[in-house]
Parts: sequence; structure tokens; C-alpha cells
Amino acid sequence: MEFTVQQIADLLQGSVEGDNTVKVSTLAKIEEAQAGALAFLSNSKYEPFLYTSGASAVIVAEKLELKKPVAATLIRVEDPYTSFSVLLHYYQTALIASKVGVEEPAFIGAGSQIGDGHYRGAFSYIGQNCTIGENVRIFPQVYIGDSVKIGDNTTIFAGAKLYTNTVVGSNCTIHAGAVLGSDGFGFAPQPDGSYKAIPQIGNVVLGDDVSIGANTTIDCATMGATLIGQGSKIDNLVQVAHNVEVGKHTVIAAQAGISGSAKLGNNCVIAGQAGIVGHISLADKTTVGAQSGVSKTVKEPGTIIQGSPAFDYKQNLRAMTVFRKLPELQRELELLKEKV
Amino acid sequence: MEFTVQQIADLLQGSVEGDNTVKVSTLAKIEEAQAGALAFLSNSKYEPFLYTSGASAVIVAEKLELKKPVAATLIRVEDPYTSFSVLLHYYQTALIASKVGVEEPAFIGAGSQIGDGHYRGAFSYIGQNCTIGENVRIFPQVYIGDSVKIGDNTTIFAGAKLYTNTVVGSNCTIHAGAVLGSDGFGFAPQPDGSYKAIPQIGNVVLGDDVSIGANTTIDCATMGATLIGQGSKIDNLVQVAHNVEVGKHTVIAAQAGISGSAKLGNNCVIAGQAGIVGHISLADKTTVGAQSGVSKTVKEPGTIIQGSPAFDYKQNLRAMTVFRKLPELQRELELLKEKV
Amino acid sequence: MEFTVQQIADLLQGSVEGDNTVKVSTLAKIEEAQAGALAFLSNSKYEPFLYTSGASAVIVAEKLELKKPVAATLIRVEDPYTSFSVLLHYYQTALIASKVGVEEPAFIGAGSQIGDGHYRGAFSYIGQNCTIGENVRIFPQVYIGDSVKIGDNTTIFAGAKLYTNTVVGSNCTIHAGAVLGSDGFGFAPQPDGSYKAIPQIGNVVLGDDVSIGANTTIDCATMGATLIGQGSKIDNLVQVAHNVEVGKHTVIAAQAGISGSAKLGNNCVIAGQAGIVGHISLADKTTVGAQSGVSKTVKEPGTIIQGSPAFDYKQNLRAMTVFRKLPELQRELELLKEKV
Repeated sequence: MEFTVQQIADLLQGSVEGDNTVKVSTLAKIEEAQAGALAFLSNSKYEPFLYTSGASAVIVAEKLELKKPVAATLIRVEDPYTSFSVLLHYYQTALIASKVGVEEPAFIGAGSQIGDGHYRGAFSYIGQNCTIGENVRIFPQVYIGDSVKIGDNTTIFAGAKLYTNTVVGSNCTIHAGAVLGSDGFGFAPQPDGSYKAIPQIGNVVLGDDVSIGANTTIDCATMGATLIGQGSKIDNLVQVAHNVEVGKHTVIAAQAGISGSAKLGNNCVIAGQAGIVGHISLADKTTVGAQSGVSKTVKEPGTIIQGSPAFDYKQNLRAMTVFRKLPELQRELELLKEKV
Repeated sequence: MEFTVQQIADLLQGSVEGDNTVKVSTLAKIEEAQAGALAFLSNSKYEPFLYTSGASAVIVAEKLELKKPVAATLIRVEDPYTSFSVLLHYYQTALIASKVGVEEPAFIGAGSQIGDGHYRGAFSYIGQNCTIGENVRIFPQVYIGDSVKIGDNTTIFAGAKLYTNTVVGSNCTIHAGAVLGSDGFGFAPQPDGSYKAIPQIGNVVLGDDVSIGANTTIDCATMGATLIGQGSKIDNLVQVAHNVEVGKHTVIAAQAGISGSAKLGNNCVIAGQAGIVGHISLADKTTVGAQSGVSKTVKEPGTIIQGSPAFDYKQNLRAMTVFRKLPELQRELELLKEKV
Repeated sequence: MEFTVQQIADLLQGSVEGDNTVKVSTLAKIEEAQAGALAFLSNSKYEPFLYTSGASAVIVAEKLELKKPVAATLIRVEDPYTSFSVLLHYYQTALIASKVGVEEPAFIGAGSQIGDGHYRGAFSYIGQNCTIGENVRIFPQVYIGDSVKIGDNTTIFAGAKLYTNTVVGSNCTIHAGAVLGSDGFGFAPQPDGSYKAIPQIGNVVLGDDVSIGANTTIDCATMGATLIGQGSKIDNLVQVAHNVEVGKHTVIAAQAGISGSAKLGNNCVIAGQAGIVGHISLADKTTVGAQSGVSKTVKEPGTIIQGSPAFDYKQNLRAMTVFRKLPELQRELELLKEKV
């Protein structure tokens, strides 16, 4: 995609200073931008880069006063950061939207329906009796089992796998290699020490506006549904076990793990590599620190916890401060014992 | 799949109370069940739901005395929980068994053999000289390298990858995105600070009745085999490094990691996000707590350890209790020093 | 692949003792080797196995004096370990090199170019305008998005996914299921408690000689590139977030996680399950212990840290030693208080 500076200025309702026929084809940071790139200057800390940047064009503030000559064409707008964000959204949306139609071979089972404006990449698989909305992008090698339902405007990247009966809302993004609906890890111990699998016949249900990271796994419920609420965002390599319920607008960072039947409230933040044990609840707006292990229900909304096992993060911080000095503490105690 | 209540009652050797022509097509919990669903009532705590449930039919105990009228058709059996479990197994088995035959395009290399009753999904790949048993289900986009051996009745879900020379037993389940046989992480440091890959020419061998979770990775041995013993169950996103040996009926929960050449005994339980360092052994029936880091061999069968690094879990619990009070302990020590 | 012992001896410039027409088809450890296998004896601790081994042939030192009769044919060389390593490299290289040509169906988009000597497995996907070097092996079900660049002699195993604009150097190995270029985890909180995705339009750039483990995920940069430097080796299930920069010859073990915009120096070692918070730097040759959580920049090259949060590993070791004795320490303090 290539645009003239004038086209971009028109889009942003800005004014051009310099050659308005210059063409740009990518967006870049001002300190890294090269020919063909459009950058922006918002924070005055970066102003020195304006005079040395290789960018073909730079978005700057209307009121900026130049201290030296500038090689790049300028686009003057009221708020350069906001204008640049608008362009970023255009750029990413255009990239995805450029994928339309069906690349053969692609498989679609009997009784499945898919709405207008969709993309089905080569080697993608859709089972039987699926109901898929409009403008859905299904990238190559995606697997969609039987009787899956997917809302409008959802994008599923290469090689993601949705088991039979999975339900996905509208405007969701599922990244490459994510697995939704694998069997919950449930095994009944037998008298001889072996284990027998407990059938897992439930499914996974994602609300609207949910994002699932690359290679993340979400198990189906034993019965009923493993639920990810509207607007929740899950990072890469996260494990969500069977019958977990995640509320709305909750964020789970990479490599965190949520054990079976745990319930997370709305607007929680679970940091990276944290673990939540099974069958507990976290109140709304609970924050769990990185690498923490949460073993008890959190009842008070807005609680912040840290540690493995996790407790109040300020207490944890103080305890960790003393932990580092434990050898000295021990020595002081020894000295005192001798004295007494 | 749709059945009349009478058909199910016959299967369970139960008696029908109400309309025996009612049809059910799914199984659900009594508190969530809607029209078309069959539920069960085992624990009397849930009896109130019997009188309000939307289920079309409910399995109840022969001896249950109704306190109110019930809308659903009842199936009376001796033990509702056991009867329901039987149905769950039927249901899950039927779902898998309904997949038979070959969906084109599917790839199979020269010299490979596969037994009767199999399913090969579209875009599945089988290399050369593979030997695959009967009733094996190979879902779409599965990759099976050259010279792989797979026993009877094994199911491999969408997009799992088995490198060349992998051996899988009978009655195994391998979930979506799992990788068996990737190179062990072995690099020899060179004098210039760079690393040279040590060839990894061994393989991965799974015994019978093994379950491997979604996106779990098991590396091939440098030479010989990385072994997962009969009946062992491995959850999602677990890392098993080269030359590891896991015994029989050992359970490894999600996101745990087993480093190179570690040996786990039989009937061990490794909780979520735990790590085991390389070249150590765990005795039979060792239990490792969540997020623990095991750095030493465990010789005593039945040992329970916790912490990072891990030690006796009761000691760890007591130490953690004091850990939280460290700031107070420090203050008390200061006061005492002043006094003395 | 089958060779006579004489062929192998010629390759290694060694001399044959016994039947030089014996054929071998695999390599094995001397204590596990069976008929058809070639083993080696380097460490004298293993000499007893020489007299009982089922190997068809064994590589031994020129100067070795036999204490008993040996069934296997011997190949005498100066340094058995080095000679065996040479064979291992031959073996692994031959396995990969045997894959040449295109297995249909394979997809390649308009404007993409790929050099001589390549392999493209069935169901592999290459988007538009890609530039791929010579002798590149693309295994089945690999996904390569648009405008991707890949250097010579790189191998990409089954089902790995490279998003649009990814750049991979020469002599790289990318294992099954790895994902390069998924969206960075960036969401702007909105006044109503919901989150809005921040477009992630950058890419992932791997230097030459980089190895990426199975099911590892590397996110694209928000703008610019997430960089993995030349010769760095990343194990399985590792998470590398957006805008991270990893130096040269740095090793990251399984299940470690590197948060956004962190910068790792050259020749660092990050052990398994460790986590690095965002926006910090690690000096060259920093070593981070297993399960550690690094929350601060490390300025001193060669620093070794451990713990969550991580600090000097020797201090951590001493503090952990006292941690185990905390209950006793508390009791002693109580006793002392009573005395005073």
C-alpha cells in the first residue's frame, strides 16, 4: 500500500509543509524511520530526531516551531499522537481486510454456513453444521470442528484449532496455534493405581471482543462451558482449564495458568507466569503479580496480591526485603543468644 | 445424536416415570439443563433444582421420594451418578467413533500402512514407512513424520505433530498442537562464545493409554528414547526435555517442565507450573506441589515436596507461615537488641 | 540408510578390526545398542559394556587394549568421541537433506521466490512476495505469511507459523508449532473499563544461526522489530514479547518468558521458567537461574542472579538456607524474649 503525503494529510485533516507528492508505504518510529516511512513527533524529547530522520514524512503539531531545516515533508495536525494512532488502526485493519475469498484447497463440511465478506485460507478446515458470521477471516491451516459458532468480524490466524461445539463471539481475535476446546484434564484414580479419563463433553464459549494469544490453550468444560467474558484479553501460552469462568475485560498475561473451575471476576489483571488454583474465586479488579501462586479466594474487589503462595503485595514486598537479610538476622540472633 | 428417554432407560436398565417418547440430544448439569437435555440428580443438595429444571429428562434414584411435581420425565436407576457416567462415556466415544474414512486431500507416503476403521482428516500428513494400527483417528492437519509407529485405537487431534521415528502405544490420546520428537535442546559452547548444535537423533516413545495435552512439547532423545510410561497423563503446555523417562501412571499438570535426563517414577503427581531440573530422579509416588522447583533426587517413595527450591511440604508450609511475619520478627529482634 | 563398517572407517580414517562387511543403519549408546547399530566407547567407565554390547560395530580408541573377546566389529580411531560426533552430524544432516522437492498440494502466492534445492512439504503455505533462499526445508503445514524473507539453509519444521513481514536469517532452525510475529499484547484501557487493541505493525527478525524451539511464541513489535540476535538458541514454549531485543549467542531455556521491550545482551543464559519484566536490560553474560523473576536492570556483565524477585545467587542461596529454618529461628527468638 502506497499513499501520497497529501492523501494522508486529507485523511487526518492536516496541512502539508513541503513536497505533497512524496509517497510513503510504511509507518515507523522517528528515530528508526527510513525513506518511504511516515513517522510522528509528539514528545519534545524526540525533537532532535526530526532534524536527522530519514523519514519521507513526519506528522508534527500545528504549533511546533522548527529550530533547524527539515528534509522530510511535514504534516501538521492538532495532536500528532492521536493522528498517528488513527493511521496505525487504518494500516492494521487494511492488512487484514485485504484477505478476502477462498484459497483452494479449503475444506468445508456439510451443513456449514459462512457469511459474506469472508476469507478462508488454503488448508483451512471447517467441519459440519457450523454457523459463521460475516467478514470472518479464517487463515490457512485453521481447524474448526463440527457445530462451531462464530460471530461477525472475527479473525482466526493460521493454525488455530477450535474443537467441536466451540462458540466464539463477534470481533474476536484468535492467534496462531491457539487451541480452544481440548479435553479438560480429569482422570479418576482406579484401585490399581491407574487413571480412567472422565469424559469432557462441554465446550468453550468466548464473548464478543475477546483476544486469545498464540499457542494458548483453553480446555472444554466437563459439562457446560468454559467461559471467557466479553472484552477479556488473553496473552500467549496461557493455560485455562476446564470449567473456568473469566469475567469481562479481564487481562491475563503470558504463561499464566488458571486451574479447573476457578472463577475470575471482571477487570482483573493476572500478570505473567502466575498460577490460580482450582475452585477459587477472584473478586472484580483483583490484580495478581507475576509468578504468583493464588491458593485462596479473594473476596475484596481491588485486592492486589503477590508471592507464591500469594498474599497482600505490600506485606509481600516487606517480607521479601527481610528475606534477603535473613543470614544477617540469623547472625544477630546468635550474637544475642551468646550475650544473654 | 437424538434418543428417546425409553431408549436411554433401556440402556441403563432403569424405569421411566412420565412421557417415554420425549427426546434428548445432550447431557447437562441439573442446574443448567434446558429443553433437549438429560440431567441427573445424585447429591440431595441439588434436589431443589429437580423441581425447577428445564431438562427434558432427569436420572434419579429408585428410592427418591418427590416433594413436588416435576415437569421432566424421570428415569429411575439404582445409582444415578454411575448411570450418568456410563452415558458420558457412550457420548464421548460416539463423537470420536463417528469420524471414519478419509477426507481428501490427505497425504500418505510410500510404504506406510494403516489399519481398518481409521479416520484421516483433510490436510493430515503421514510420511513414509509408517505402521499405524486399527481404529486410529487422525484429525485434520496432523503431521506424522517418516517411520512412525502408532498402536490401535489411538486418537490424534487436529494439528498435533509427530516427528520421524516417534512411537505411540495403543489407546493413547494426543491433543491438538502437541509436538512429539522436536530436537532436544543441546548445544556445545565453542571457544568464540557461539554454540554448536549437538545432533539429536533419538526419538519419543509413548506407552499404551498415555494422554498428551494440547500444545505440550516432548523432545526426542539425543540417542535412545524419551519415554512416557504406560497410563501416564500429561496436561497442556508441558515441556518434557530430551532423554527424560516418565514411569507408569504418573500425572503431570499444565505448564510443568521436566529437564533433560530426569527420571520420574511410577504414580508420581507433578502439579502445575512445577519444574524438575535435569539428571535427577523422583521415587515412585512422589508428589511435587504447584510452582515448585525440584533440584535434588527424591529417594523415598511417597515423598511430598513444595517450594522453589523444593523441600518437605510441611516444613515448607511452616517456613512460609513465618516468612509472612518476617518484618515483625525483625522488629522484635531489634527491640531485644536494644534491651540487652 | 545403511553402510558397511568399512565405509564408515574410511570416512573416519580409522582401521577395521573384524568383519568389515557388517552393515549398520543407526547410531546408539553402547549400553543400549542392538544388532544393526554402531556405538562408541570413549569413557573407560563404559568398557564393560563393550564385551556384552549387542552393537554390530563399535568405535574405539587406537590404543585400547581388549581384556576379553568382543563380538562387534571394531573401528579404531584416535578420538572415538570426536569421530562419533562427526557421524551424528552426518546422520542428522542426511535426514534433513533427504527431503527435497515439492509434495502436492502446497500453496505458494504470487510474486514469491524460493531458491534451489528446497523442500516444500504437503499443505505448506507461502504467501505473496516472499523471498526465500537456497536449500530451505519447509515441512508440511508450515505457514509463511506475505512478504516474509528467509535466508539459505534454514529448516522450518511442521506447522510452524511465520506471520507477514517476518525476517529469518540463514542456517536457522524453527521447530514445529513455533509462532513468529503474532500481535504484541498491547491494549489501551478505556474510561469504561474495557480495552482497545493498540495496533502492532512491526515484525520479528531472526539473525543467522538462530534456533527456535517447538511451540515457542515471539510477538511482532508494535513498530520496528522484535530482534533475536545471531546464534541465539531458544528452547520450547518460550514467550518473547513485542519489541524485545535478544543479543548474540544468548540461550533461553524452556518456558522462560521475556516481557515487552526487555533487552538481553550477548552470551546470556536464561534458565527454564524464568521471567524477565518489561523495559529492563541484562548486561552481556548475565545468567538467570531457573524460575527466577528479574525485575531490575542488570548492569554488570557476568552477573548471576536467582530468586523471585531475583538477586545475587550466592546471597539467595544463603537466604534460602535460613528460610528453611525460619520456624526454629522464631522459636529461639521467643525463648530469648522470655529470658530477657
